[in-house]
Amino acid sequence: MNFKQQLNKYVDFINYWLEKILPLESLAGERVCDAMKYSLTSGGKRLRPVLTLAVCDMFGGKLESAVCFACAVEYIHVGSLIHDDLPCMDDDDLRRGKPSCHIMYDEATAVLAGDGFFLSAFEILTLAKNFGLDDAKILKACGFLSKMSSFCGMVGGQDMDMLLQKNGADWKKVEIMNHYKTSSLIQAACCLGAIAAGASESEIETVKKYALALGLAFQTRDDILDVVGDESVLGKPIGSDVEKNKSSSVLVLGLEKATLKAQQYTENAIFELNKLPCNRFLLDLTEFLLFRDR
Amino acid sequence: MNFKQQLNKYVDFINYWLEKILPLESLAGERVCDAMKYSLTSGGKRLRPVLTLAVCDMFGGKLESAVCFACAVEYIHVGSLIHDDLPCMDDDDLRRGKPSCHIMYDEATAVLAGDGFFLSAFEILTLAKNFGLDDAKILKACGFLSKMSSFCGMVGGQDMDMLLQKNGADWKKVEIMNHYKTSSLIQAACCLGAIAAGASESEIETVKKYALALGLAFQTRDDILDVVGDESVLGKPIGSDVEKNKSSSVLVLGLEKATLKAQQYTENAIFELNKLPCNRFLLDLTEFLLFRDR
Repeated sequence: MNFKQQLNKYVDFINYWLEKILPLESLAGERVCDAMKYSLTSGGKRLRPVLTLAVCDMFGGKLESAVCFACAVEYIHVGSLIHDDLPCMDDDDLRRGKPSCHIMYDEATAVLAGDGFFLSAFEILTLAKNFGLDDAKILKACGFLSKMSSFCGMVGGQDMDMLLQKNGADWKKVEIMNHYKTSSLIQAACCLGAIAAGASESEIETVKKYALALGLAFQTRDDILDVVGDESVLGKPIGSDVEKNKSSSVLVLGLEKATLKAQQYTENAIFELNKLPCNRFLLDLTEFLLFRDR
Repeated sequence: MNFKQQLNKYVDFINYWLEKILPLESLAGERVCDAMKYSLTSGGKRLRPVLTLAVCDMFGGKLESAVCFACAVEYIHVGSLIHDDLPCMDDDDLRRGKPSCHIMYDEATAVLAGDGFFLSAFEILTLAKNFGLDDAKILKACGFLSKMSSFCGMVGGQDMDMLLQKNGADWKKVEIMNHYKTSSLIQAACCLGAIAAGASESEIETVKKYALALGLAFQTRDDILDVVGDESVLGKPIGSDVEKNKSSSVLVLGLEKATLKAQQYTENAIFELNKLPCNRFLLDLTEFLLFRDR
């Protein structure tokens, strides 16, 4: 199986289980369930749950044992996108070319849909019991996912992003923000795959370093694509006030240096990956993300 | 120890642990941590965590074994208040006489603070391990709290509340909404206390019925206090369009019938409580809530 075939296999597997794992039905919360279904099926790349599955695979774990962890991580990610798009945050009317949740429904429903994803992620984790995982592994995953997605991780990073967009940023701050905002949840995704497979503490530590570098590379590439994809910005000097996103790596480093940074992060990620059991797919994925066009 | 002394003892215990259990500190999320501290210490009644402790007590469990469960439930509650106060929800500038979180900080920070409480509640649950609880009990608590706070519980109820406030309501709908919006988390609070103490499945089922009735009584009394406390509404006929909250029990039933309903619910709650090991404090608390003035 080549890289693209393997990637599609993981994505199909995760999409199958995302639809099946938790019925989005409720007597009282019919509308919020609709909104959650809408956001869950609006065509994400499923990068994070793919990482959970691929890392579990690398350590010789069964794919089924990581499926709840993978779905829970995607729930947190989808919830965060809904809240990030809100008018009081990034104020984005579109998400992947379709109306954002608060445009399709309304702001109240979007806040509640995000809350629903955050809160239900942990019910999904507990379902791993039905897939043969023992309690200790599920609890370890629960503590890690909770920490990496909250104020010591993703939520903390989004808070810093809001501040930097208002007050301006330097590279040191942007790197810390990218670590919290983007790498934290990617670290959770990868480490949960390792936990599901029963990896050792030192292996999990290496996975965490790999995922940190991968997340930084991913976010830097994202910032590059934001500028390269927007011709109205491309024509202006970097650092001018036309750009919306003042906390972007490209804005503080310039396009050339940001491109070098993304390469360095990718090299760091591959360096850590090479300490782990050989895995062609993860090596290919890590390089694929560096050169992707969205 | 009389009722008030026992209540104060529980509240002091929970306030001590709420401050200690999880340091609200983060390199990236300094502001969101400030907002979380602000909302956590703005003087709540701590009803839900008190219920967790009291139910654990009733089944002969150690208070310490329920402390993480109690704190996690309060985290979910505080997070929900922050989001309920947002302009797109109930649009309340004041919470317990102080500026709401989004007034004191801003809307983005308030959304993130609520998210932080929701997400970190589950890290706190996992800390119960350090207080001698076994993995199976913690996982059971995790699944239950997650379900009862998300779209099949609290979040679903808030969604229904938003719809009823817009479209109007009848009593049947208001009762379903109160069940989801208010009773669900009170059920989680009580059942988590029972789980911590190692209560049997059938005991937990009775606790769940008790908490359902208690929550309905509590919400109905809350709706009564909203009207009785607001003289501008008191002078107008019930059902007129001056009232902001169209989904209130008092609005659909009238003051007299709502008062009777609150009494009935309280009797139902006491009926269930009497099936359980004798507990003077919970009986007193159940009656106290019926006659409280806030």
